Amino acid sequence: MLNADIHIAKSRNDQVATAIRMELREELLNVISHVVSLQEALLALSARNVNTLFVGYTHMQPAQPVTFAHYLLSQFDTLNRDIQRLEEAYTRVNMCPMGAGAIATTTFPISRERIAELLAFDGVVENSIDAVSGRDFILEVMAALTILAVNISRFVEDLIIFGSFDVNLIELPEDFCSTSSIMPQKKNPDILEVIRARMGDIIGNFMASITTIKALPTGYNLDFQEVTPKLWECIDIIKEALDMLSKLITKVEVREEKLARPELSFLAATELANMLTRNYHIPFRASHKIVGALVRELISKGMTLRDANAEMLGKISATFGFEIKLKDEDLQAALNLSNIVNLHNVTGGPSPAEVRRMLKTREEILNHVRSRVFERRSKIKKSIEKLESAVKSLIGSAGSHTNR
Amino acid sequence: MLNADIHIAKSRNDQVATAIRMELREELLNVISHVVSLQEALLALSARNVNTLFVGYTHMQPAQPVTFAHYLLSQFDTLNRDIQRLEEAYTRVNMCPMGAGAIATTTFPISRERIAELLAFDGVVENSIDAVSGRDFILEVMAALTILAVNISRFVEDLIIFGSFDVNLIELPEDFCSTSSIMPQKKNPDILEVIRARMGDIIGNFMASITTIKALPTGYNLDFQEVTPKLWECIDIIKEALDMLSKLITKVEVREEKLARPELSFLAATELANMLTRNYHIPFRASHKIVGALVRELISKGMTLRDANAEMLGKISATFGFEIKLKDEDLQAALNLSNIVNLHNVTGGPSPAEVRRMLKTREEILNHVRSRVFERRSKIKKSIEKLESAVKSLIGSAGSHTNR
Amino acid sequence: MLNADIHIAKSRNDQVATAIRMELREELLNVISHVVSLQEALLALSARNVNTLFVGYTHMQPAQPVTFAHYLLSQFDTLNRDIQRLEEAYTRVNMCPMGAGAIATTTFPISRERIAELLAFDGVVENSIDAVSGRDFILEVMAALTILAVNISRFVEDLIIFGSFDVNLIELPEDFCSTSSIMPQKKNPDILEVIRARMGDIIGNFMASITTIKALPTGYNLDFQEVTPKLWECIDIIKEALDMLSKLITKVEVREEKLARPELSFLAATELANMLTRNYHIPFRASHKIVGALVRELISKGMTLRDANAEMLGKISATFGFEIKLKDEDLQAALNLSNIVNLHNVTGGPSPAEVRRMLKTREEILNHVRSRVFERRSKIKKSIEKLESAVKSLIGSAGSHTNR
Amino acid sequence: MLNADIHIAKSRNDQVATAIRMELREELLNVISHVVSLQEALLALSARNVNTLFVGYTHMQPAQPVTFAHYLLSQFDTLNRDIQRLEEAYTRVNMCPMGAGAIATTTFPISRERIAELLAFDGVVENSIDAVSGRDFILEVMAALTILAVNISRFVEDLIIFGSFDVNLIELPEDFCSTSSIMPQKKNPDILEVIRARMGDIIGNFMASITTIKALPTGYNLDFQEVTPKLWECIDIIKEALDMLSKLITKVEVREEKLARPELSFLAATELANMLTRNYHIPFRASHKIVGALVRELISKGMTLRDANAEMLGKISATFGFEIKLKDEDLQAALNLSNIVNLHNVTGGPSPAEVRRMLKTREEILNHVRSRVFERRSKIKKSIEKLESAVKSLIGSAGSHTNR
Repeated sequence: MLNADIHIAKSRNDQVATAIRMELREELLNVISHVVSLQEALLALSARNVNTLFVGYTHMQPAQPVTFAHYLLSQFDTLNRDIQRLEEAYTRVNMCPMGAGAIATTTFPISRERIAELLAFDGVVENSIDAVSGRDFILEVMAALTILAVNISRFVEDLIIFGSFDVNLIELPEDFCSTSSIMPQKKNPDILEVIRARMGDIIGNFMASITTIKALPTGYNLDFQEVTPKLWECIDIIKEALDMLSKLITKVEVREEKLARPELSFLAATELANMLTRNYHIPFRASHKIVGALVRELISKGMTLRDANAEMLGKISATFGFEIKLKDEDLQAALNLSNIVNLHNVTGGPSPAEVRRMLKTREEILNHVRSRVFERRSKIKKSIEKLESAVKSLIGSAGSHTNR
Repeated sequence: MLNADIHIAKSRNDQVATAIRMELREELLNVISHVVSLQEALLALSARNVNTLFVGYTHMQPAQPVTFAHYLLSQFDTLNRDIQRLEEAYTRVNMCPMGAGAIATTTFPISRERIAELLAFDGVVENSIDAVSGRDFILEVMAALTILAVNISRFVEDLIIFGSFDVNLIELPEDFCSTSSIMPQKKNPDILEVIRARMGDIIGNFMASITTIKALPTGYNLDFQEVTPKLWECIDIIKEALDMLSKLITKVEVREEKLARPELSFLAATELANMLTRNYHIPFRASHKIVGALVRELISKGMTLRDANAEMLGKISATFGFEIKLKDEDLQAALNLSNIVNLHNVTGGPSPAEVRRMLKTREEILNHVRSRVFERRSKIKKSIEKLESAVKSLIGSAGSHTNR
Repeated sequence: MLNADIHIAKSRNDQVATAIRMELREELLNVISHVVSLQEALLALSARNVNTLFVGYTHMQPAQPVTFAHYLLSQFDTLNRDIQRLEEAYTRVNMCPMGAGAIATTTFPISRERIAELLAFDGVVENSIDAVSGRDFILEVMAALTILAVNISRFVEDLIIFGSFDVNLIELPEDFCSTSSIMPQKKNPDILEVIRARMGDIIGNFMASITTIKALPTGYNLDFQEVTPKLWECIDIIKEALDMLSKLITKVEVREEKLARPELSFLAATELANMLTRNYHIPFRASHKIVGALVRELISKGMTLRDANAEMLGKISATFGFEIKLKDEDLQAALNLSNIVNLHNVTGGPSPAEVRRMLKTREEILNHVRSRVFERRSKIKKSIEKLESAVKSLIGSAGSHTNR
Repeated sequence: MLNADIHIAKSRNDQVATAIRMELREELLNVISHVVSLQEALLALSARNVNTLFVGYTHMQPAQPVTFAHYLLSQFDTLNRDIQRLEEAYTRVNMCPMGAGAIATTTFPISRERIAELLAFDGVVENSIDAVSGRDFILEVMAALTILAVNISRFVEDLIIFGSFDVNLIELPEDFCSTSSIMPQKKNPDILEVIRARMGDIIGNFMASITTIKALPTGYNLDFQEVTPKLWECIDIIKEALDMLSKLITKVEVREEKLARPELSFLAATELANMLTRNYHIPFRASHKIVGALVRELISKGMTLRDANAEMLGKISATFGFEIKLKDEDLQAALNLSNIVNLHNVTGGPSPAEVRRMLKTREEILNHVRSRVFERRSKIKKSIEKLESAVKSLIGSAGSHTNR
């Protein structure tokens, strides 16, 4: 009788959906673990670079001084939201469609809740039509992977630019690049370029799936079958990319000496104006104009902000109607990039103290993620073991039956 | 001094991000409310159609009998996951980037937490680089809207097919269709076709945004500015579509008489086999084959399952080696579509009893969503009022200052 | 010396581009041949169905009577434009980038024109920067394949709908469908659903490639390397789909008896109004209204246009102020679907005479395509043979050199 | 009678398709003219920069010396293929669907060829089903615009990078950028960033249209109506972008002094090896290794290729087993970037002589494009004038008729 039951509850439509969800929940946990690995690498590198000066870019132009750890933590935080999205998707993936049959459940008295529990699901996809024809759980995972891919691609783009001949702020590890025998000073960031392109593949797979599923009426259609391989492909690509990046990132070195380039002294301009307002009570708009005029004068003379002195600044201030007695130590402090970074110590700022605080809380965040992944894996493992032993004992008793 | 503070904390980069998030959180609540309206319409229509027979389709072929309420609830449940995704996106949207400045916060002693609270945010986007250059909150909302659009498009496709001349299971409301004066029997589902196409626009906007953002390095880039209008366009399109669908759906009528078409009697085939197994202990595989043979014979004679009788079925069973004395009442029960639907009463099945249970729990789900939306709106309203009154009193005191 | 020359002209960048173009030109000819095969199948099926009545649909509603051949030729003509696009892409693909080196050509005195000729190219991609960093030739082919995929997908959608249980105008071949043992009357169009979904893959691959290439600056980037496999995948998918469709289409049978369904008599409505205008000089607007009123009356009585008679139509005409003496033969002629089709004999219309004319010209079109493909293949073959023999004799003489 | 004819031939379905094609053919010519304007600007700037040294980049790394004109011509040639694609699309756009009616032509004796001629089409879209339900002509234009958008985006990306603080090879015109009062040395390439993002919109519109049309069965569907505005939007965006770029490009200045940076002396490495092979008969592989060793030694000493001398190179050659007596003039010639560029004078190379030749032929190409556009515009204008005068005389005679 049980045999018949199993037979009857069984339809390709709900079985396929169940099997995909069982594999997908494991893969989601795998992807999360891979993201965590990259985050660990980012934290480790950050810890070594809390005081390492770096350039904060906007519009591909140097804008303000930051630290390398501050930059790396921005990548950490972005990935954190990716993990949240993946974990939230998990709650909808790990629901059981089994028992929905072809579309209308079954007339045999099964307990869908019991099946769900045996298979380690967190609940049942109740409505049977929805259970066999809903594929938004796949699209949602692909969407989360697409956004993760965009984030990875932007990070990789940063690394390529930072490591390029002209920007040259970081040294990319040799074994992730290719060089020509004749131009040993030229390193092509091969692995990063490949990762960047592969992130596009995830977008393409998502678009293909969206296009296919959007056009389908409710109910099982064989088109679904073509969508699933694209899901697995996305997962494989992202895991490999995260893996390569985790390995690469730990070997990145900052060329801190490049921060000493005279041209980069202009990064202090904003803080110089701030100082005039803070220490000499010049209204903000005016101090902005004064510094602008100073910079223009320096440039016209082929000099940089490093060459500014108290006298110059005093003269220009006077032309704007502000007679100030500028202390040279104030000027030097305002032009010192490390000093500027230290002053940016509000929440989320680049100051080493603030970065150290953030590093600590990020360690805790990772611990929480890791234990949630662990718990989910344990739950699945236990249920499957229980199920397997139940099946074994069932087969055993069925076997002895037959033997009698 | 405060004036200066405000000036200094201020940069286009964090301001723009803050303004988008403030508008977006309200729009997210609006979209959720629009989804809820459609769900209310679905529940109302379901309540009127708990016993209305309907066809469950797979592969665009009639597969099993269900009820119209059962079908409508499958749409409700799908939309429910869309609401979850939108609410989860809300938690990441409603975080405050203010105070991040151009990229590196500020050297003036502001409290980013206090600003966030005053502006009714649930927290701070800490890392300042992340705060000004992260746009995954926009992509995430667009992804959620894209999946919602796919779901709406599939629902609309169903309605177009169900209402088409050949399928003709439902009657679409006249005022949402166009007819020609000469062919009054032909109704073109204009509004539904337009909705279907507009759902494609959301996908297109998402793709455009993905393509643009994927290519950008970290830091503010003006390309961002071109992405935001696409976000608002997606929101406007989806709200309008949900609005039209909510109005249309309440006027849909089922042509229940179409279920009486003799050809549709074949929908009983699966249950007929089940009955043979259940009542006459024929193994499932065999009963499947017996019913298959019966159907083939009927078709060859130009008949349908409605024309089957106990004798016929008995004879065919015998050819498969099963001598059964089939009661005519068993046969009639197995062929009665309403009866079949009643028998499908496991969790999530089409039986009126189960559908009624589901209707009740869905009402509760809606209540919860509505109160969460209400609470979020209240919180925003209160904070903004408080902020406005604080600003007023500040301006007042500043004013009196000036007057002195 | 020659050895050195070859070495020097050689760079991965121009070599890769050359190799892709050489493979792609052959594959383009292969795809064109596959399209031609499908077109041949369409012509063969058309020839058997010149007089077979069929329904012309708009908005998924039956609109006017056509013939099956007329429908099939519409697919032929669409594919024809796909071939044009592929042939035009060929002219840009078959240009030679060789000799462009890494980006700036070479300082060794090579003849790029001679290399191009030896490799059977139609010309040189002149500017060397353009030659190594242009990938629009790949995007263009993928765009042409994308549009072809859209056209195939729409054709397949038609076949699925025409063969569905409810529409049931055609019989899909059994070996391209799956049936269940228990519901032998239900045929799932498996192959067609799979083709439909795979056409989405081509779109996805194109989108991935667009996203990747759009973001790249000029010059060779390794991202290119990830685009090429997607190109080959698109080509493989489309060839397989065309192959399956060609085989399937030849076995499609029209269920002409379905055209005799009383409901479909309404297809004559437009022509009935035309007849009133033509034969009885009733202004077109009025005759439209008269027929509309007639149809409404028939429907209200549970009748169809087949049940209309001269008296009925006369009475309704009178209420619109037109006293006509309608001849019954005029009415019968206007209601006869075959007759209506015969009357639609302007250029491109469904009348058998016009379809026969079109069939003939389409045969000629195919001949032209086939001979262009043949010529291109011959040219490539000859060049390659010549090149190989030149290389052989060179190696021979080099060998003897060495031996000396 | 004619009146009736016109009435009858008329259906929304073929009228809409005809109207779109009539507007689209004009817009195609407009887009082509805008591309030509950009090409003219490129030629003008090239003419001024035939001898201006520039860097040829691969992998975002400086690779070989070229000239700025050589780079600009690579953009010209890319745009040339875009024009070809647009002109080829034109031949399929400018075909007339009029007379196809709703789907099955008409029973009134019209001449579709005559209508096509009157409306200045180049021919008839014959099959009437194809004529009203084919939208590949729209997709094809959008595909061509998408590829053009990709090409523009890559060009814009180049300009942003070349103009960035770190690369700094060109000076972008002030009025297309934004600066801050405080950091006058920092120019944000606003217009270019906006163009780059808008090119993404074209991709998004194309994707939306593909997704919508792919899912539609044959026959007119109202979804089509939503696709057309996207087509016009693409055209408006591309015209505006081309317009802005044409204006911007003429004001771009090269910072030739940057080419004198000692680090860029490494650009001569390849040619140095070539010289060893050419003048001193060292096998190519060996000369590659020798130069590589030289570069490594120079870098280790903090020097650049500029600091190399004949003695150094001789010593290193000797360690590889090649005793050569290097002339200092050979070394200096091999290290001189202008000299290197002059030597790259094979077809399509950067040498001023070759660039001058290409400039001349490109002028001719532009002349041909301009005259084809002119002829097409004239043909349309003449036909429309003729049609209008025919209509006037018809109305005139109809008027006099009525008056009688």
